[in-house]
Amino acid sequence: MSKKDGMKVTPWEVKGDVDYEKLMREFGIKTILKLPEEFKENVLFRRKVVFAHRDFEKILDAIKSKKKFVMMTGLMPSGKFHLGHMILAQQFVFYQKLGAKLYVAVADLESYNARQKSFDEMRKTAIEEYLINYIALGLSPKNCDFYFQSARSDDAKKSNAYYKLASNFSRYATFNEFKAVYGEISPGKMNASLLQAADMYHPQLPEFEGKPVVTFIPAGVDQDPHIRIARDIARRDKDCKFMPIASTYHAFLPSIKGGSKMSSSDENSYIAMTDSPKEVENKIRKYAFSGGQKTVNEHREKGGNPDVDVSYQYLKMFFEPDDDKLKKIHDDYKSGKLLTGELKEILIEKINDFLKNHQKKREEAKKKVDDFLFKF
Amino acid sequence: MSKKDGMKVTPWEVKGDVDYEKLMREFGIKTILKLPEEFKENVLFRRKVVFAHRDFEKILDAIKSKKKFVMMTGLMPSGKFHLGHMILAQQFVFYQKLGAKLYVAVADLESYNARQKSFDEMRKTAIEEYLINYIALGLSPKNCDFYFQSARSDDAKKSNAYYKLASNFSRYATFNEFKAVYGEISPGKMNASLLQAADMYHPQLPEFEGKPVVTFIPAGVDQDPHIRIARDIARRDKDCKFMPIASTYHAFLPSIKGGSKMSSSDENSYIAMTDSPKEVENKIRKYAFSGGQKTVNEHREKGGNPDVDVSYQYLKMFFEPDDDKLKKIHDDYKSGKLLTGELKEILIEKINDFLKNHQKKREEAKKKVDDFLFKF
Repeated sequence: MSKKDGMKVTPWEVKGDVDYEKLMREFGIKTILKLPEEFKENVLFRRKVVFAHRDFEKILDAIKSKKKFVMMTGLMPSGKFHLGHMILAQQFVFYQKLGAKLYVAVADLESYNARQKSFDEMRKTAIEEYLINYIALGLSPKNCDFYFQSARSDDAKKSNAYYKLASNFSRYATFNEFKAVYGEISPGKMNASLLQAADMYHPQLPEFEGKPVVTFIPAGVDQDPHIRIARDIARRDKDCKFMPIASTYHAFLPSIKGGSKMSSSDENSYIAMTDSPKEVENKIRKYAFSGGQKTVNEHREKGGNPDVDVSYQYLKMFFEPDDDKLKKIHDDYKSGKLLTGELKEILIEKINDFLKNHQKKREEAKKKVDDFLFKF
Repeated sequence: MSKKDGMKVTPWEVKGDVDYEKLMREFGIKTILKLPEEFKENVLFRRKVVFAHRDFEKILDAIKSKKKFVMMTGLMPSGKFHLGHMILAQQFVFYQKLGAKLYVAVADLESYNARQKSFDEMRKTAIEEYLINYIALGLSPKNCDFYFQSARSDDAKKSNAYYKLASNFSRYATFNEFKAVYGEISPGKMNASLLQAADMYHPQLPEFEGKPVVTFIPAGVDQDPHIRIARDIARRDKDCKFMPIASTYHAFLPSIKGGSKMSSSDENSYIAMTDSPKEVENKIRKYAFSGGQKTVNEHREKGGNPDVDVSYQYLKMFFEPDDDKLKKIHDDYKSGKLLTGELKEILIEKINDFLKNHQKKREEAKKKVDDFLFKF
């Protein structure tokens, strides 16, 4: 947990200005320094949205030597799927194309412990908000194990092995390390953490991939405490001889209003994948935090600051993949040639083009949902 | 936990002279006052070895009105099965004959958290020491769900529902109540307690008996803390509307040496079901705590004390079902007519007759093991 200078970054809360350098020092994670060509083609990697890691070289090595490797991720089935979630989803589609076997956990048992939703509601949200958007973004059912924590598999052998692992991990954990990592801890939180560790490590069991295999997690940097504690617990389980989980960390997509990240609890902080063109227009025009000056004249004279301008950040992270065009926008905004209003209109058009296309793909995706789920 | 006057009774340790009256007050459990005829035919009930309860009237009501009812029990797969374990085993054979559906959990996940045994060793012990003796004592595979916590079922629906329940219960538990009940608590112990609560309540789920149903646990009185905490947790789970677990409590079979109970860790404290006639002779002659006087003359004069004499207690609890004969032994010992050595010989003969027959049944039982287990 990092609290200094008004910054707070925990798996449950992110607030203040996020100092990524400081977080990396505190969490003990490293900068990604060198990228192979196929990663440079991806905007998120090229522009250092994905910026830090643990054991990233193992992933690269597995890709290079065409060894089996697993990408693991999870989702909390609540709220609307928005652009902030897309950072992660784009990565797993990218890794799936590179040959990764994907494990995608719907953390409904964890969510039940923290929230008041029913399992039926959570299932609906997981499918309609998350899975459908994943499919629309390119997720394939091949090499993808999409599952709910509450019903791991329709194969009893697999289910038993998964839950057994979560239970066995409790032997290797201590209250003090939970407290050190999470600050405060309840039986529900502890249980969720052990289940998460099982999510991360169970692909390596005989009942799943059959043997220890390179497994990694792409995650928001706020999620590192979960990964750290899982690595510590799994290391002590000498029976299973797991390979430690590798990970990469991405920056947060800033809130429309300029806060640290988009938040499902404030609809004017995010663009949902189902927002209409009017909603996008309204949210960006009215709320998008600007790096511009107070008046047009002042802006023309002093120029704007693209580094804090939310519209520019969205273009950089998603919507302007052409580096030259992005540079021009950057320079024009900085020089004062490009006004905030004009920058916003560029973004609005880009988002609405993207969403129009995406929403069509969502309709197609609805027909493919069953390919990802087992029927009881 | 009860600690006064050198008595300590917890699920993990029993020592000192057990004051059952005091335990009942502390635990808030009640004396069994009235028994229907079919219970009076059973030595353990008639002689108040089974002496206390929570909600016993619900069990009686289910039997009387021929409603479905479930008996739940568990075993820790370690050490040798001995006469101390038989108190419980005889009860569940008795209840099975009265129409109960039996659930028998091998607490291997719990055991893994507390001990160093492998799952293979635990499975071997559960089958060879426990299941085979249960079968030899009359357990039928019909209406019996014998399972391992680590592999609940070969039906994924059932497995998922069971583990989901254990996880969901963590939402309704607090650290303070674990501490209050268990004294000290670790992640492994907490996890074991939540699994136990799932063991107790999962028969009531839609995937098992289909609906809330009278469920009860016959247990040693030291196990009440587990039952209390499970009742408290399950009561808060409004989604499932469980019927509270009922229970009955039995006294401990004293150690051969006269301690509070037989202990697997001291082979001279127990008679194992596989002991040879010579071993029985030796253990009883050499170690059986006597209520007699120091010399024959003194014994003839003052008489012995059957209430503390271990040999008499074993006859009372198991080996002399005829009340008149038992009374004669009692009175003769008390008057000094029957010497300690003679009493021991009566017991040795009874135990060896019983074990000879039981060991034959064990051989038969080995062939029936597969009727109780699923194959993957």
